[in-house]
Amino acid sequence: MNVLWIMSDQLRWDYLGCYGATHIDTPNLDWLASRGVRFDRAYVQSPICGPSRMSFYTGRYVRSHGATWNGFPLRVGEPTLGDHLREAGVTCGLVGKTHMTADIEGMRRLGIDPASPTGRCIAEGGFEVFVRDDGTNHSAYPSRHAADYDAYLRAHGMDGDNPWEEWANTAIDPATGEMRSGWALENSHLPARVPKEHSETAWLTTRGIEYIEAQGDAPWLCHLSYIKPHWPYLAPAPYHAMYGPDDIPPPVRSAAERETDHPLMRAWLGAAYAQSFSRDAVRDRVVPAYMGLVKELDDQLGRLFDHLRDSGRMDDTMIVFCSDHGDNLGDHWLGEKDLFYDCSARIPLIVVDPRDAADTTRGTACEAPVEGIDLPATFLDAFGIAPKPHILEGRSLMPWLHGEVPEWRDYAVSEYDYATREARTALGIDQRDARLTMIFDGRWKYIHSEGHRPMLFDLETDPDELTDLGGDPAHGDQIARLREAHFDWARQHHSRTTLPAERIEAMARGKEPPGIFIGHWNRSEAEAEGRPLPDHVTG
Amino acid sequence: MNVLWIMSDQLRWDYLGCYGATHIDTPNLDWLASRGVRFDRAYVQSPICGPSRMSFYTGRYVRSHGATWNGFPLRVGEPTLGDHLREAGVTCGLVGKTHMTADIEGMRRLGIDPASPTGRCIAEGGFEVFVRDDGTNHSAYPSRHAADYDAYLRAHGMDGDNPWEEWANTAIDPATGEMRSGWALENSHLPARVPKEHSETAWLTTRGIEYIEAQGDAPWLCHLSYIKPHWPYLAPAPYHAMYGPDDIPPPVRSAAERETDHPLMRAWLGAAYAQSFSRDAVRDRVVPAYMGLVKELDDQLGRLFDHLRDSGRMDDTMIVFCSDHGDNLGDHWLGEKDLFYDCSARIPLIVVDPRDAADTTRGTACEAPVEGIDLPATFLDAFGIAPKPHILEGRSLMPWLHGEVPEWRDYAVSEYDYATREARTALGIDQRDARLTMIFDGRWKYIHSEGHRPMLFDLETDPDELTDLGGDPAHGDQIARLREAHFDWARQHHSRTTLPAERIEAMARGKEPPGIFIGHWNRSEAEAEGRPLPDHVTG
Repeated sequence: MNVLWIMSDQLRWDYLGCYGATHIDTPNLDWLASRGVRFDRAYVQSPICGPSRMSFYTGRYVRSHGATWNGFPLRVGEPTLGDHLREAGVTCGLVGKTHMTADIEGMRRLGIDPASPTGRCIAEGGFEVFVRDDGTNHSAYPSRHAADYDAYLRAHGMDGDNPWEEWANTAIDPATGEMRSGWALENSHLPARVPKEHSETAWLTTRGIEYIEAQGDAPWLCHLSYIKPHWPYLAPAPYHAMYGPDDIPPPVRSAAERETDHPLMRAWLGAAYAQSFSRDAVRDRVVPAYMGLVKELDDQLGRLFDHLRDSGRMDDTMIVFCSDHGDNLGDHWLGEKDLFYDCSARIPLIVVDPRDAADTTRGTACEAPVEGIDLPATFLDAFGIAPKPHILEGRSLMPWLHGEVPEWRDYAVSEYDYATREARTALGIDQRDARLTMIFDGRWKYIHSEGHRPMLFDLETDPDELTDLGGDPAHGDQIARLREAHFDWARQHHSRTTLPAERIEAMARGKEPPGIFIGHWNRSEAEAEGRPLPDHVTG
Repeated sequence: MNVLWIMSDQLRWDYLGCYGATHIDTPNLDWLASRGVRFDRAYVQSPICGPSRMSFYTGRYVRSHGATWNGFPLRVGEPTLGDHLREAGVTCGLVGKTHMTADIEGMRRLGIDPASPTGRCIAEGGFEVFVRDDGTNHSAYPSRHAADYDAYLRAHGMDGDNPWEEWANTAIDPATGEMRSGWALENSHLPARVPKEHSETAWLTTRGIEYIEAQGDAPWLCHLSYIKPHWPYLAPAPYHAMYGPDDIPPPVRSAAERETDHPLMRAWLGAAYAQSFSRDAVRDRVVPAYMGLVKELDDQLGRLFDHLRDSGRMDDTMIVFCSDHGDNLGDHWLGEKDLFYDCSARIPLIVVDPRDAADTTRGTACEAPVEGIDLPATFLDAFGIAPKPHILEGRSLMPWLHGEVPEWRDYAVSEYDYATREARTALGIDQRDARLTMIFDGRWKYIHSEGHRPMLFDLETDPDELTDLGGDPAHGDQIARLREAHFDWARQHHSRTTLPAERIEAMARGKEPPGIFIGHWNRSEAEAEGRPLPDHVTG
């Protein structure tokens, strides 16, 4: 058994046909869903690349791994999926993006040379890097890894100081011949200079195929991690023109949302990028490009799946497809992937187990509240590795794939640390208190906002999440119940990671360490509890 | 400036003269208190050696460092006091006990050889070991470090397979000449075979003096960490006979306590060692020995202080004295150091700053709720090292020493993981739920007991903590208030340790990383926010 774990970046679940989208067709992902289980209540542990991915890669909540925002290093010592697989002889390879920031200071503290093989593995979040590419190779991010893609572009005649910037993120205006930047949203309707066969999505697909081809008979996990449809929103031809303003879904928003009394929401609506995405002109240019990028991704996945079929890998490979979070795209008058609306915190998640045991669930959907952190536990399960619930806070999805109904969590949790966001400075909140936590039980979505009243949405009566009931005394019972769930969750162990349950049980049974002497009056009392006194004493 | 940080093990605060004890005199510690500040509401973060010490050594709550019980390894990567001092060029030496258990599996994961210098330092909790001695060198604990003391005993003619067991933990019954074990409480009135000049307390004092003597002009911290008065309760002559049953204070307990309806308390009262310490015969033998061990410690500290005076070190050395937790000694019908009664979770804490700035507070007491985790922050402050609030959860005590009234916490927190205790198995509680948390605000002591009603004590009207008000509806308001405080605490960041506040502020001001492009329509919008487009594009 091998695992091919495909992740796209900033992909909304409702932009896939298998999740009900009608404005775009995604036949290859729809086919994948027909072979596996589509999870319909899958939530990321933070709707932001870095913390979400660190949760995927550690199998732990953001409060536990601590890398709460992009660029916040993952603490050295946090065990990763790669560590767990490597221990069991499984290769854990990376092809693409992780958004991992290394804890160089922590490594130095432990005497680990970041340039050593171990140091490099830690710095890469536990992955063995085949290709690392975090995209957005802007000159402001010298640490972003796109050297491979730059070299590839150069090898194909696309030269320059920054080939990614000048080819993948630059368009030619066919009307004027001018070069236009992918950073400016007004240009999103133009084609990227890079031809589609050399786009980042095509290139990563090819590298993924090469990685899989290079594996022998030993088991492997390949994390094929695409950059797109994350911004810059610039698609190569013909994808740039495949959709137009008439093809995009209407924004999910109401005038009443702008009248919210919630201080945090008001601050957020004031953010420049939220205001930008609230403009129809922006949506009319950006959403078609976004759709083109999704369509391109689906086409490339078709090429990948063809390869797996042709090479026989379909039969011995579990395929998982997901996103690291969504994109508000103007819904709720918001841009980017802030907060916990379903367009942001909910993700597409499709899992295909090729084994017979999964035959009964193919093409079905699962409504259980599932979390990104469930994937590492699922992968350990797929490889037959004993579970590690003392470290991994997620649960294996395997029972759902095999038609069982396991004991399951009652709610999904997601966290958002807005310490670096302008909403925080606008409100004058201490950076330690810029904490949001979502508790979603399948119907009620409760959002704890430190220092403010909570927000509450009833997704049964208000699936578009247009009405915040958090200030409505009529819903005090729901708020109290979900607040209690939050407290339950906040109290849980999450740092007690160095001893498995069996060791703790052995200690509880007095077997380990043996012979502890506490409070025995004399020899006979001690011996009655199996504690023989030393031989040299009479008592 | 240097720091001498003296810790005793299992020493109750109310067995020192300076804390009001009249049944024992401790002139040397009283003298120390007269030179510094005596903290009257100092609480450990867990009333158990291992987790308490890991909080002292990391400056972090137990929920944060995760080593929740004795023998639970401290996760590799948890920054320690030693790490922080070493970075600043300060030696952090250990003379005595730490109860540290190394995370060998974690080290292996990071490619760190436990036998390498770095590996050894990590395994020792960040200390540079001059002497490691965890006491209780029973054959059941091969990992307990007493090799040095064994060698010392042998060098002084006290031989055997296990010199510690055969000399320090064995008594000779003067009436019969028989050898009697220190593990059996009935023998606690007998003198240890080891003469007082070679006891573990005397030996560690000498080693501490040697350590200090060996330091040059470079700044140092010496953690002189005594084993006693921790069990085995066996004192050398003449301390074994210095106190008798008539000298001990009466037990603090009431008949009503045994009638508690609280399931956890009922289970705890049923523990064998609780029942043992409830017997007068046990107290009559053990408490005098305990007092003798305290008296011996005080005498040895007198020798140490004389040395510091004679060598001039008194003038350039901050001296801190504390304990890692107390000992119930039959109070509340309990033995050992379980739960959060003041005899267990409250500690003596005396801090002497030799500098002029502390002159106004010498001999005074401080009533603020102080925690064991405040010491690392205090030590950084003493050495002029910039504070690290993103890692250290405690606060510097220095303002209190200098007569200032700083902004301070409202309550002290302590935690207890009873996953390995018989109360847990007796109640059939899941090992993940064996969680107790104390919130003490200076008057009300609230104890969260997962799965049960809370406990509550009013230390103003009931300083002996004899009446649990946790089931009394009349105190619902206090319970709700302190429960809220617990929730506040549980929600806080505690794993976001890799970036200091200044870095996060820089990110919030958009200075780091520079030039992130989100949601700009065109060049002028981007430039208005200081985001120049690349040179090669027209817009």
